[in-house]
Amino acid sequence: MIRPSDQGLVSTIQAKIDNLNKPKGSLGRLESLALQICLIQQTLTPQLRHPCHVLFGGDHGIEREGVSASPREVTWQQMLNYGRGGGGVNMFCRQHGFTLRVVDAGVDYDFDPTTAPHIIDRKIAHGTRNFLYEPAMTAAEWERALAIGAEQVDACAAEGCNIICFGEMGIANTSASSCIMHLLTGIPLEACVGAGSGLNTDGVRHKLDVLSRAVANVTQCSYSQRELLPYFMGYEMAAATGAMLRAAELRVTILVDGFIMSACMLAASHMEPSVMDYAIFGHCGDEGGHRLMLEHMGAQPLLNLGLRLGEGTGALCAYPLIVSAVRMINEMDNFDHAQITKYF
Amino acid sequence: MIRPSDQGLVSTIQAKIDNLNKPKGSLGRLESLALQICLIQQTLTPQLRHPCHVLFGGDHGIEREGVSASPREVTWQQMLNYGRGGGGVNMFCRQHGFTLRVVDAGVDYDFDPTTAPHIIDRKIAHGTRNFLYEPAMTAAEWERALAIGAEQVDACAAEGCNIICFGEMGIANTSASSCIMHLLTGIPLEACVGAGSGLNTDGVRHKLDVLSRAVANVTQCSYSQRELLPYFMGYEMAAATGAMLRAAELRVTILVDGFIMSACMLAASHMEPSVMDYAIFGHCGDEGGHRLMLEHMGAQPLLNLGLRLGEGTGALCAYPLIVSAVRMINEMDNFDHAQITKYF
Repeated sequence: MIRPSDQGLVSTIQAKIDNLNKPKGSLGRLESLALQICLIQQTLTPQLRHPCHVLFGGDHGIEREGVSASPREVTWQQMLNYGRGGGGVNMFCRQHGFTLRVVDAGVDYDFDPTTAPHIIDRKIAHGTRNFLYEPAMTAAEWERALAIGAEQVDACAAEGCNIICFGEMGIANTSASSCIMHLLTGIPLEACVGAGSGLNTDGVRHKLDVLSRAVANVTQCSYSQRELLPYFMGYEMAAATGAMLRAAELRVTILVDGFIMSACMLAASHMEPSVMDYAIFGHCGDEGGHRLMLEHMGAQPLLNLGLRLGEGTGALCAYPLIVSAVRMINEMDNFDHAQITKYF
Repeated sequence: MIRPSDQGLVSTIQAKIDNLNKPKGSLGRLESLALQICLIQQTLTPQLRHPCHVLFGGDHGIEREGVSASPREVTWQQMLNYGRGGGGVNMFCRQHGFTLRVVDAGVDYDFDPTTAPHIIDRKIAHGTRNFLYEPAMTAAEWERALAIGAEQVDACAAEGCNIICFGEMGIANTSASSCIMHLLTGIPLEACVGAGSGLNTDGVRHKLDVLSRAVANVTQCSYSQRELLPYFMGYEMAAATGAMLRAAELRVTILVDGFIMSACMLAASHMEPSVMDYAIFGHCGDEGGHRLMLEHMGAQPLLNLGLRLGEGTGALCAYPLIVSAVRMINEMDNFDHAQITKYF
């Protein structure tokens, strides 16, 4: 069960922030970040411990409809590449001291554990079914994926982690995310669909056409919002959703990446609204729809750099700002001690 | 003399970036940052060495007109505070490994070198004159301030620094910056004036009234744009301007902070347009006018977090993104080597 973060400390924390030796409010978003982390940790002296990044991989049946500029094989190729340290996620994990876990939740490839020992094998199937014709996964697979995500968070927390970031690799997962976004927010599908890894105008038009037909199939039936999640999501997305829910349960701060991870947080917040108390949104990405999704969720992303790589890279790039916020509240001198005229 | 950065390498650098194993353009602003740093350093494998932060302090005659929410004494109090390590600039320098130099270019206080050994004494005077009635500084003082800034950059470069950040402490220096912005860009003065360290609506109105009268005095005369700089600037701003010009001369990457440092870069670019090739704008601050000034300069700030502390804090917070851009071009695997289907 996720407890909403207890607001009792708000005025004490805010008073501490306001007495730091700077014009009131002058560290802007870093101040609200510090407040949020203090509330999550229920302390005036928060600490960030053993940051972990969990990257879930999975393939999507909908890829067969030509909705992505990238072929399916890129999923497993990139999963292997993370073992060589040359991916986007690797360099930013190294830069910011994150421990990286790469989890195969449903990639359409048989990894050899001897040559790819970095991949944690939790494969549910060789990719989801094609949601243009049938649900992407069964109810049992959905529960299993949620549990796989939760298990990873448990493992990180057992190592002392109290801030966690999630990323994904799964060709065609912007398609799944666009459908989820449309169905949970009511925002028109065309505003939820973007270029993914690099579709041109015709490609985006085709993607929208495919997704419109898929969505039309379910709107004729009486699915609950909860049932729509396994209908469209990939295994890697379901695992990330389960991971987010468990992280909040454990009061671990969650760093949310771009379009796909935001869609998972959107899904998680439909299951347990309080999960949002634990979420920091790393960036507003370049994928069409991400900004609208964030606005719908009332999220204030830290960065806006036109990133759309995925893997969790945008969220990782935002991590130093969280460190800055924590340093601010722990290290900055206050007006009383610094003997500075309080000015305002 | 500042050489414009040689554009001959552009296509080679861009080809390297485009062949990294990611969808083309998917690292957004990090890609254009990497290109800029490669051009500055004229290499495909840029390095960031010995980052330095130089903070210039100075007082302003215009402070006597009640244009700031903060009293003049805060300048020297904060300059002392930086020696105790409890200022905003201190914690972010520690976080990102910057060597901090604190330079008194014209603070209205006699620091005791035995109790404040961290302050580099280059005091020109105990604050500038009041530009409501007369030029803030003489032509000779202006030249001296430029040289003081250049000297600091020389010292950093001699230690091996190739990326430098500047900050300031000077109560009322948003007033000086607003006048410079208005006079160099032609943007109406009211759009250039903001709340500084925390003026209320009446305070901003009074500040605008004072600055309008000051600007009216000079527009009746035939000052050149170059002559307007010493008329309005503080010693710390003039020193920062000189420092930026020297940094570009030495092909050192310049990290530009908020409203005041951007006004100094604006001034520097009026003296030597090529200085802009070497400038990375760290953030768009919360001070009224900063966004307009950046747009006028064609600058793309990295962060937009509502910061308005000054001292260089916003620019320092953006530094990890520059590191990320450099890691990207040096560490990310390419499509050939990673054996990944090039997708787009």
